[in-house]
Amino acid sequence: MKLVIVGGVAGGASAAARARRLSESTEIVMFERGPDVSFANCGLPYYIGEEIRERQKLLVTRPEILRRRYRVDVRVMTEVVSIDRAAKAVVVRDLRDGSEYRESYDALILAPGAAPWIPPIQGASLPGVHTLRNLDDVDRIKGAVDAGARRAVVVGAGFIGVELVENFLRRGMTVDVVELQDQVIPVVDREMSTPIAEALSAKGAVPRLRDSVESIAEGDKGLRLSLKSGGTLETGLVVLGVGVRPENRLAIEAGLDVGPRGGIRVDASMRTSDPSIYAVGDAVETREFPSGRPTQVPLAGPANRQGRIAADAILGRGATFRGTQATAIVGFFDHVLATTGKTEKALRGEGAPFEKVYVHANHHAGYYPGARPMTIKVLFDPGSGRLLGAQAVGSEGVANRINVLATALQAGMTVRDLAQVELAYAPQFGSAKDPVNMAGFIASNVMDGQERQIHVEDWEAGRPGGAMLVDVRTPAEFAAGAIPGAVNLPVDELRDRLDELPRDRPIVVHCQVGMRGYMAGLVLRDSSRDAYNLSGGYKTYLLHHPTAKAHA
Amino acid sequence: MKLVIVGGVAGGASAAARARRLSESTEIVMFERGPDVSFANCGLPYYIGEEIRERQKLLVTRPEILRRRYRVDVRVMTEVVSIDRAAKAVVVRDLRDGSEYRESYDALILAPGAAPWIPPIQGASLPGVHTLRNLDDVDRIKGAVDAGARRAVVVGAGFIGVELVENFLRRGMTVDVVELQDQVIPVVDREMSTPIAEALSAKGAVPRLRDSVESIAEGDKGLRLSLKSGGTLETGLVVLGVGVRPENRLAIEAGLDVGPRGGIRVDASMRTSDPSIYAVGDAVETREFPSGRPTQVPLAGPANRQGRIAADAILGRGATFRGTQATAIVGFFDHVLATTGKTEKALRGEGAPFEKVYVHANHHAGYYPGARPMTIKVLFDPGSGRLLGAQAVGSEGVANRINVLATALQAGMTVRDLAQVELAYAPQFGSAKDPVNMAGFIASNVMDGQERQIHVEDWEAGRPGGAMLVDVRTPAEFAAGAIPGAVNLPVDELRDRLDELPRDRPIVVHCQVGMRGYMAGLVLRDSSRDAYNLSGGYKTYLLHHPTAKAHA
Repeated sequence: MKLVIVGGVAGGASAAARARRLSESTEIVMFERGPDVSFANCGLPYYIGEEIRERQKLLVTRPEILRRRYRVDVRVMTEVVSIDRAAKAVVVRDLRDGSEYRESYDALILAPGAAPWIPPIQGASLPGVHTLRNLDDVDRIKGAVDAGARRAVVVGAGFIGVELVENFLRRGMTVDVVELQDQVIPVVDREMSTPIAEALSAKGAVPRLRDSVESIAEGDKGLRLSLKSGGTLETGLVVLGVGVRPENRLAIEAGLDVGPRGGIRVDASMRTSDPSIYAVGDAVETREFPSGRPTQVPLAGPANRQGRIAADAILGRGATFRGTQATAIVGFFDHVLATTGKTEKALRGEGAPFEKVYVHANHHAGYYPGARPMTIKVLFDPGSGRLLGAQAVGSEGVANRINVLATALQAGMTVRDLAQVELAYAPQFGSAKDPVNMAGFIASNVMDGQERQIHVEDWEAGRPGGAMLVDVRTPAEFAAGAIPGAVNLPVDELRDRLDELPRDRPIVVHCQVGMRGYMAGLVLRDSSRDAYNLSGGYKTYLLHHPTAKAHA
Repeated sequence: MKLVIVGGVAGGASAAARARRLSESTEIVMFERGPDVSFANCGLPYYIGEEIRERQKLLVTRPEILRRRYRVDVRVMTEVVSIDRAAKAVVVRDLRDGSEYRESYDALILAPGAAPWIPPIQGASLPGVHTLRNLDDVDRIKGAVDAGARRAVVVGAGFIGVELVENFLRRGMTVDVVELQDQVIPVVDREMSTPIAEALSAKGAVPRLRDSVESIAEGDKGLRLSLKSGGTLETGLVVLGVGVRPENRLAIEAGLDVGPRGGIRVDASMRTSDPSIYAVGDAVETREFPSGRPTQVPLAGPANRQGRIAADAILGRGATFRGTQATAIVGFFDHVLATTGKTEKALRGEGAPFEKVYVHANHHAGYYPGARPMTIKVLFDPGSGRLLGAQAVGSEGVANRINVLATALQAGMTVRDLAQVELAYAPQFGSAKDPVNMAGFIASNVMDGQERQIHVEDWEAGRPGGAMLVDVRTPAEFAAGAIPGAVNLPVDELRDRLDELPRDRPIVVHCQVGMRGYMAGLVLRDSSRDAYNLSGGYKTYLLHHPTAKAHA
């Protein structure tokens, strides 16, 4: 058996190591266009910011390790230029001398990754305009910062964009971030991104939402960016982080099936439309778990697992890739935002039935010092209660809870299961009723009709019509900031002051996070009033109405 | 409906709040023997250490909240002295004036908790000898420390014992901890407790294992403890933390079924042998999940959920308690140890088939600064791969992984599922191959026969007989500390030096954590040698052979 692997980063390196472990006799040849294999691409922004100080740390595995420990014939600076499927051979070019030669294969794994997408902007290829994919890129960008660049413009406020903003700020730079969408981190629901948008502003970055770069020109002080909004930005350093596109040229030219968004099509064992060719990582069209819908998710975790599975399949093991939940996490200084499974916007886009709950809770017991607030949003099927997706934002403890919810999603758990899941509790680590349990309690109550919640967007759209809004927090909380039009009637006085509330129209109650509003709604419904609890209370309202406004 | 609740802490308070939310018309009476309801019992040690500085923070819910928000008729300083099941009434005593009266019920919930067990030691009732259950206890102990106690002896190195040691050390005290077992935190497997034992010593506490207190007498400088080992300890302050016993007197006197270890017997809806009486929390015998075996687990999380479920059952909802996995976590300064499900010792005690793997990994990507090591032990069924239990020890990230594993256990996941679970990865939060995935990979390899591991205890018991031990780490690692009898042959030289290794006897290879040993074992088996990989490598060996010895 001779296995040829195209690409030596996450998926390719995993496939090579697994193949050797499965078979000492297989000949394994790996071609890598760049000088490095298995580098830490997720660490690149932090090297710019000097959080990671040694460049060498970014080299997760060196070619020597793959050669000596795994007997992989690693050929760096070597590009595969075409696949001869009939002859089962690839044509490769040594980038150091331009020479070309053929290499035969019994099985071929394509792990070419994805390339940063360059939007069709005039001037996008000017010096000073960068993308961030590999160590060459990071050397150029960090070089510009080290040489004294004081101002950066990041185009795209996705994961990499936000990480770049953090790291430019760490270097003392002024940073604008231009984002076409009306939110940062567009893969999550907008309200869940609010704390990150606010943190960007608080740290001094300028988020320019609903805006885009129309053109880039060389100006007096470096580059001049013309924005769609009409403004201009002068900067010496632009980084385009507006997404990636699968590296599919080889696959397309070889006639392999490719999906509508460019991902190489594979089956569950990562096999392409040619039974001798497999593909893994950011270049492939994979399946969304659990729906099975085609998707493209350029993430390191799935890439690594896919590499392993392709090797298994080639060497006669039966492993299959289950699809991806698109679990992802991003930090911005000490703020953390994470997601797994479906977002509300994705569910709305599909017309899928869903219900949602919000939990605002401390990451550990409030009575122990250092408790940090977090918000969890859980999306679930209103019929079965099955978990569809979840997002969390806060600081400490966010990774913990999104991992629990990702595991629950993979297991097909329902919100009733979340109510019972037995998580670790000591005061410095959690709560006897963990935020995940709380989400399960609330969602179970919604399913049982025990809780009747109304969402902020429905309330603002005038549903239910003619309703009175009652803020059941304390007068002090009400005075410190309230929803326009609300009247204050504290929950602890509610039973004694029921006569003050109408019977002839709906009543929407709310508190700070939803707990007191839940009790208030129950009291009102017991008194035959048509009452609803504003889900997630004032805190969720504020996520929809951020106080820190993005600049126009 | 009139609901009477005995006990107002975790389970009782949860039951009361849930009952009110389910029914505005139910009359709810709560009797609490002490002055406080719903206090933070898990926070008590940290108040002694002044991590929690305000005593008021320990009062999670005050009686006024239960009265005003939930219309619960809370009667503190009132003890229920007997149950008249035939009349469906309880006899109660007002502890302030000694008066007694009867209170009828339609449904009764017993949530009396568990009392610290006082071992039969002469002198255990002397002044200066304490147990820690409630705010009165904590006031006495903290009062002694505030008054200048310089030395404490903690009897029992379980969760509360270790937390007390930390907090006495925070107060600058000298601390001895006396533990009958041969390990600290006896509910986990011994090797997993090693880092905590070492941390106790490193922080200056003196763990006295395999020892016990024979008697306590008043001496010149306070109390003099005579130890079974023959030594004596002089101290002004002793805290007994050797376990708890269910408060079952009321139940026994009323003729309710009680288990062999004293827990009040209940069904899945928390109903006792009397259909009008329910019991929840530390006083009950509950079921182990998933086995269904009877167990007693005094933990706050299950107590809270049980309270909720009892209220559901009484008010016509169909909820059931699934049993407990005994998920628990303990911190000792920045060291963290956590467990869920079965331990190896429990499985051995039951004679249940099991296999185990160890993972030593960083809590996040090693290339990002601040990565902290952790060890995960996963126990699984060797036939089905189903997860049976897990333990983790380290610092950052331990709570995160034990929560994932607890969720996986509840979901009935197998180790093959762990290999695929899609957790959040960015360099400051995890790894593309999370430690949980790694556990899944290793365990799947074991199940497939792809990995042949041998455990430290089997190797030391002479299995396989006559084997050669080969340390495949680098010469520098080998020189820094190695297993007695091992010869050094680095994995990267192995294929070229195969002739140096025998074919006529088994070979056990090992590396630092098990990864290089895995590759080495494969190479050796490919060369027709009978090779095994020491599971978890040198790091697991060191857990079995701690360098820091406990004092005799």
